Amino acid sequence: MPNGMAMPGRRAMPRRLACGCYAPPVGMLAAMAVNAVSFGASPVNVEAAAGARSKSVGEGAGGLVIDCHGHYTTEPKALFDWRKRQIDAIGSPSQAPRIDALEISDDQLRESVEGAQLRLQRERGTSLTIFSPRASGMGHHVGDASVSAAWSRVSNDLIFRLTQLYPKNFVGVCQLPQSTGVEPRNCIAELERCVNELGFVGCNLNPDPSGGFWKEPALTDKWWYPLYEKMVELNVPAMVHVSASANSVFHATGAHYINGDTTAFMQFLTSDLFRDFPTLKFIIPHGGGAVPYHWGRYRGLAQDLKRPPLSELLLNNVFFDTCVYHQAGIDLLTKVIPARNILFASEMVGAVKGIDPETGYPFDDTKRYIEQSPSLGAGERRAIFETNARAVYGRLSARLAA
Amino acid sequence: MPNGMAMPGRRAMPRRLACGCYAPPVGMLAAMAVNAVSFGASPVNVEAAAGARSKSVGEGAGGLVIDCHGHYTTEPKALFDWRKRQIDAIGSPSQAPRIDALEISDDQLRESVEGAQLRLQRERGTSLTIFSPRASGMGHHVGDASVSAAWSRVSNDLIFRLTQLYPKNFVGVCQLPQSTGVEPRNCIAELERCVNELGFVGCNLNPDPSGGFWKEPALTDKWWYPLYEKMVELNVPAMVHVSASANSVFHATGAHYINGDTTAFMQFLTSDLFRDFPTLKFIIPHGGGAVPYHWGRYRGLAQDLKRPPLSELLLNNVFFDTCVYHQAGIDLLTKVIPARNILFASEMVGAVKGIDPETGYPFDDTKRYIEQSPSLGAGERRAIFETNARAVYGRLSARLAA
Repeated sequence: MPNGMAMPGRRAMPRRLACGCYAPPVGMLAAMAVNAVSFGASPVNVEAAAGARSKSVGEGAGGLVIDCHGHYTTEPKALFDWRKRQIDAIGSPSQAPRIDALEISDDQLRESVEGAQLRLQRERGTSLTIFSPRASGMGHHVGDASVSAAWSRVSNDLIFRLTQLYPKNFVGVCQLPQSTGVEPRNCIAELERCVNELGFVGCNLNPDPSGGFWKEPALTDKWWYPLYEKMVELNVPAMVHVSASANSVFHATGAHYINGDTTAFMQFLTSDLFRDFPTLKFIIPHGGGAVPYHWGRYRGLAQDLKRPPLSELLLNNVFFDTCVYHQAGIDLLTKVIPARNILFASEMVGAVKGIDPETGYPFDDTKRYIEQSPSLGAGERRAIFETNARAVYGRLSARLAA
Repeated sequence: MPNGMAMPGRRAMPRRLACGCYAPPVGMLAAMAVNAVSFGASPVNVEAAAGARSKSVGEGAGGLVIDCHGHYTTEPKALFDWRKRQIDAIGSPSQAPRIDALEISDDQLRESVEGAQLRLQRERGTSLTIFSPRASGMGHHVGDASVSAAWSRVSNDLIFRLTQLYPKNFVGVCQLPQSTGVEPRNCIAELERCVNELGFVGCNLNPDPSGGFWKEPALTDKWWYPLYEKMVELNVPAMVHVSASANSVFHATGAHYINGDTTAFMQFLTSDLFRDFPTLKFIIPHGGGAVPYHWGRYRGLAQDLKRPPLSELLLNNVFFDTCVYHQAGIDLLTKVIPARNILFASEMVGAVKGIDPETGYPFDDTKRYIEQSPSLGAGERRAIFETNARAVYGRLSARLAA
C-alpha cells in the first residue's frame, strides 16, 4: 500500500457490533466506515492509475456505460476527523468545526479515487459514475437539522470537487440534509444549491432518517410533497437510499438497505403519489430490494387491492438499479422487469468488495452479468447501460454535453 | 356464497389505512382480517367439498406433498368477536373473556376449511398442510403477556381441533405467547403444551413482537436462548414469521413480512448461534425474503466479514420455503439454494389470493412452479415436496405414522 494512499476508514474503524451495525453517537462516525475500502482482494496500483489517461465520455464502443450508483467511500481521513469533531460537539455547538475548517487538497482527492473508482472504471469498461456521498455516512439520525445541514454541505462539496477534477468520470448526486422528525422541505435549499450551482443531476432520499427505527411518514405522505415539488421543478430524480442502521437488529448493507428498498416500493404500490406527480422519478437501488424476486407477489397484491397493473401504476416513475451481485439475480431482474425500468449500477466501491470464488471476478462487477444475461438483446443492453439513465436523470445529457 | 359459510374477515373488516396497515388498538382485530379470504376469483362449492373424501396421507403418486406454511385465515366470526372483547378489555382485565367463552362447533370449523384449504389441497394435489394460527393475527404488540397467553391458547386450541378433525390434512404448528419487551422464556410452557399434549411439530417465532418498531434484541441474542434450548429438547423447528405491522410505513404482507425474513437471515449470518445450537432449525418463509435474489451479496458479505461459506455457516440450520408467487422467482430459488434447504409451501389461503392473468392459475399455486422449475430433478423435487419437511420437522414422521 503506497504511503500516500489515505485509508481513513480502516484507521478510524470504531467498535463494531456483532451484527455489523454501530451504536450512536459514535455510530455515525462508525457508519462512515462501514463500507471502507479494502483492497485486499485487488491490489492498488496508484502509479499506474495516476499515469493512465481518464477515459473520454462517449469513448466506449457502442456508447456509454453509465453507473448510476456510486458513493464516495474512499474519503480522505480528514473528512472522518471533521465529522468526528462535529459529532463530539453536538452538545456544545460553539465547538463545532466550521465548514471551511476541512482541508483536503486536490491531490488528496485524486489519490482517494485514482486507485479505486477510476481504476475500476477502466478495468471494467464503465464510462462514468453518478456519484454521491457515502450512503451509510449520511447519518440523518445524528444530531439535529443544523448538524445535517453542515455535514451535507461538506459532503456534497467534496463530490462537486471530484466532478470538477474528473468531469468525464463523475457526475454529482447530492446528500440531503434530512434530520429525524424535521420536515423534508428543509432540504430544498441544499437541493437547489447542488443542482443549480454545482451541476448535480439528482439526490439520495432517505425513507428512514431515524436510522432503523422508521419514525417518519411513508414516502407517499404529503409530508414529503414540498421536496417532490422541487424535484419536479428541477427535473431531478431521487434514489431511495437509507443510511446507516442505528438499530442493532438491522445489519446495514445486509438488511437495512434491502428492507428500505422493499418498503419504499410497497409504499408506492399502495398510493396515488404518481397521480399527484406524474413526472416524479425514483430509482430503487440494490436491484429493487426484494421486489423483482417477489414480482408475482406484488402483481398479485396490486390486483387484490384493486390497483392498476404495476406497469401502469408505477413503471413510468419507479426504476431499479442492477446492484445484484450474482448472475442468477441479474437474470431474474432482467427477465421480469421491463428493460426500460432498469439502470446499470454497481455501487463500487461499496457493500461487497471481494472476488466471487465461483466466478473469479468481483461480486460487484455487475457489468459482466448484464452482458451475459440471456433475456437482453443489444438494444435493451444499450438502454440499461446508457439511455435509461439519460431519461431518468433529466439533466444528465446536458451535463455530459457541457 | 352459501349462507353457512362464515366470512368473518370481510364482515369484521375495520378501517384500513392507505398502506394496507392497521392502527392499534383496533389494529389487532384488523390485522386478523388482513388476509381474510376472498373467494371472488374461485367460487366455493361447499357441498362438493363436504362430499369429497379427504385424501389419505401417502396417497399421492410418488409420495406426499407437504405444504409447510399454512395459516388458519378462514376463522369463524366467533373468534374475531372473542379477540375484540379481549382487546376492548385491555384496560380492565376483569372484563376479559374467559378462554372457554369461545364457542365454535365442529361443524363451524369444518365449514371454515372445507371450501377453502381442503378444496385447494384437493385441486392442487397437495397432501397436507403444516398449519398454524393466522400470522398477522398473533399481534404480539397488543396488550401484555397475559393477553398474549390467553390469545395464543385460544388460537392454538382451534388448530388442534382442526388437526383432530382432519388428521390427514393438517399438522399443527403453534403461535407463541410472545409480548413486546417480555423475555421469550415465557413462551416455553405453551410450546411444551402444544408439542407434548397437542401433537404439534413446530412453532412460529416472531423476530419483532413490537409489530414494526423492532424493539427486541436480534434473534441471535442470548435473550432468546432459553426458548431455543426448549426447541432443541423438543426437537421442533421455528418458522421465523412476523405478525401484523402497527407501523404505518410497513405494509404487512408486502413489506413487513419480507423485511422480517431478510433481517433474520442477516442476523444468523453475523452470529455464532448455530455453534451454540448445532441442531436448532429455522424456516425462513416467503422464499427467504430477499435473500436468494441477493445470494451473491450474502456470499460476498460473509466472505468480507471473514465468516465461513454460507453452506457451512447456515445451511444445516436455515431453510427457505417456496412462497414465491411466480415462476421466475422459484427458478431463481431452486437454482441458487441447495434443494435440501428448500421446503414446499404456498401459504394458502394467504397473502395473495387472485388468479395470475399471465398464467391463468392462482398466484399462490406454488406447486406448479416447483414442478416446472428447470433446475430440479425428480429426487430434488421429492426432497422439496416431502423429505426435507420430514427432516426439518423432526417429529413430523412420527406424527404422520400415528
